[in-house]
Amino acid sequence: MSKSRIAVVGFGNVGREVVPAIKESPDMEVAGIVLRNPKKIDSIKKTVSDIPVVTDIKELGKIDVAILSIPSRSIPEVAPQYLKMGINTVDSFDIHGDSIMSLRKNLDQIAKANDAVSVISSGWDPGSDSIVRGLLEVVAPKGLTYTNFGPGMSLGHTVAVKAIEGVEDALSMTIPEGTGLHRRLVYVKIKEGYDFEKISEAIKNDPYFIHDETHVYKVDDVKSLIDKGHGVHMERKGVSGTTHNQRMEFIMSICNPAAAGQVMAAAARASLRQKPGCYTTLEIPIIDFLCGEKEQLLHRLI
Amino acid sequence: MSKSRIAVVGFGNVGREVVPAIKESPDMEVAGIVLRNPKKIDSIKKTVSDIPVVTDIKELGKIDVAILSIPSRSIPEVAPQYLKMGINTVDSFDIHGDSIMSLRKNLDQIAKANDAVSVISSGWDPGSDSIVRGLLEVVAPKGLTYTNFGPGMSLGHTVAVKAIEGVEDALSMTIPEGTGLHRRLVYVKIKEGYDFEKISEAIKNDPYFIHDETHVYKVDDVKSLIDKGHGVHMERKGVSGTTHNQRMEFIMSICNPAAAGQVMAAAARASLRQKPGCYTTLEIPIIDFLCGEKEQLLHRLI
Repeated sequence: MSKSRIAVVGFGNVGREVVPAIKESPDMEVAGIVLRNPKKIDSIKKTVSDIPVVTDIKELGKIDVAILSIPSRSIPEVAPQYLKMGINTVDSFDIHGDSIMSLRKNLDQIAKANDAVSVISSGWDPGSDSIVRGLLEVVAPKGLTYTNFGPGMSLGHTVAVKAIEGVEDALSMTIPEGTGLHRRLVYVKIKEGYDFEKISEAIKNDPYFIHDETHVYKVDDVKSLIDKGHGVHMERKGVSGTTHNQRMEFIMSICNPAAAGQVMAAAARASLRQKPGCYTTLEIPIIDFLCGEKEQLLHRLI
Repeated sequence: MSKSRIAVVGFGNVGREVVPAIKESPDMEVAGIVLRNPKKIDSIKKTVSDIPVVTDIKELGKIDVAILSIPSRSIPEVAPQYLKMGINTVDSFDIHGDSIMSLRKNLDQIAKANDAVSVISSGWDPGSDSIVRGLLEVVAPKGLTYTNFGPGMSLGHTVAVKAIEGVEDALSMTIPEGTGLHRRLVYVKIKEGYDFEKISEAIKNDPYFIHDETHVYKVDDVKSLIDKGHGVHMERKGVSGTTHNQRMEFIMSICNPAAAGQVMAAAARASLRQKPGCYTTLEIPIIDFLCGEKEQLLHRLI
């Protein structure tokens, strides 16, 4: 089997997990790691000795897919650069709502113009969870779905706390309270000379936290609290036809970046099976994400 | 919105639930019920006064999709009849393995030759559960998935018991024991002059039961035991990249025919969005099963 050549763009929490996900896939290979910041090359070359680490994807030869494991806010600017080279892109863009829809529209035009495919918002939420949310409505079109996250570290909330003056390090945990509501537990290490009570108030009044029950704790060391485990519990109670009380649940307990990296790797494969354009996970048949011969997979999975 | 015209072929447990599923869908309407057995028409016309009940689909005018809510064993013969008229078909063919794959291959040729679409094996298992089984492997490609059914009535096992000499009426319940293993509880009403112990032995030695822990109970009335509730609990523990112990579960507790009828109705909609050919649920994007404008659905579900 000739292997698809994948470039991993970015080497943070998720990029580090995309690499093993690709390496473990018989149909793909890691052509190299692309870093946007040349200062990081030397330190990363020390941990990754078997893969080229470059700043320009052109140094890697022919690339089929670039997996963009970079912050969501950079995706709208970075994805077009690769699509314009005719390279498919995959990202886990996670700014819900209008942002996803406008990214999809923009990348769709660019992808089509360059005979490429972009699969967006393709981590675990949005991503594989989005497929579950759709499926629950296939079985019971009327009703309510609750997506309950955690317990686990929220990257977005943690970044928001770190931006507050006087915070040296922080961790924001998302605790599910059921019915789609969440409690926030925030652990902060504060800089010398700052008042914990004032920082606690600032966190609780931050837009990220103001609508949730938030508890702030002062700690001496945040690093020792970091655990990348996360989870989700989706629930739907709905109606099939005229039959009420149809109940469904999807529960996941996972290492967060490993799951995200794996779904992105699967989306890279799926991108090579779509016509030019931009897709979310809901717009791609499940079978296209899986490695192997289609008839054999169907025989086993149906 | 112009409504797609759906014919419901067969009016058993599932057909009766396909009708409300279509009626509750804003984008579809029930054009009529097609019965293969003309003797049943009069009795069904008494319960269904607002929909034409016919023996030949041609009496219903233009039809977009025929939903075949008939026994699986009849599908290979009946589906081609409609496809050859250029009418899409949907079924819930549930004979796993080779049978599904040869049905898919045969209907694919006929559908393509007649510019039609066939969606097969599109109830809840196979059907929506198949999508979940695929999705679990997207998140964790290595590992084991267990599909645990029940507690609920198994139609196939019940039919097998009823075929045994001396059995007047029967109910076979599927009880999940975990890790994909099941216990069978069989309730039988026996005909006069037959020996319960002999019938019990015959059931336990039947190919449907011989590999499972089976308990047989003698009852005076089976009808009063029938409950159409059923369920499934799928579990996967697997590996994302090189990260082990990724855990996922899908749990469903449903009225069985209502869920099957609803998924078939959704598949009828999806059939109208595919190119000619035969598809299983794994080969169709989730979004195509759902009613509504694509961008609005994506905005809400991603």
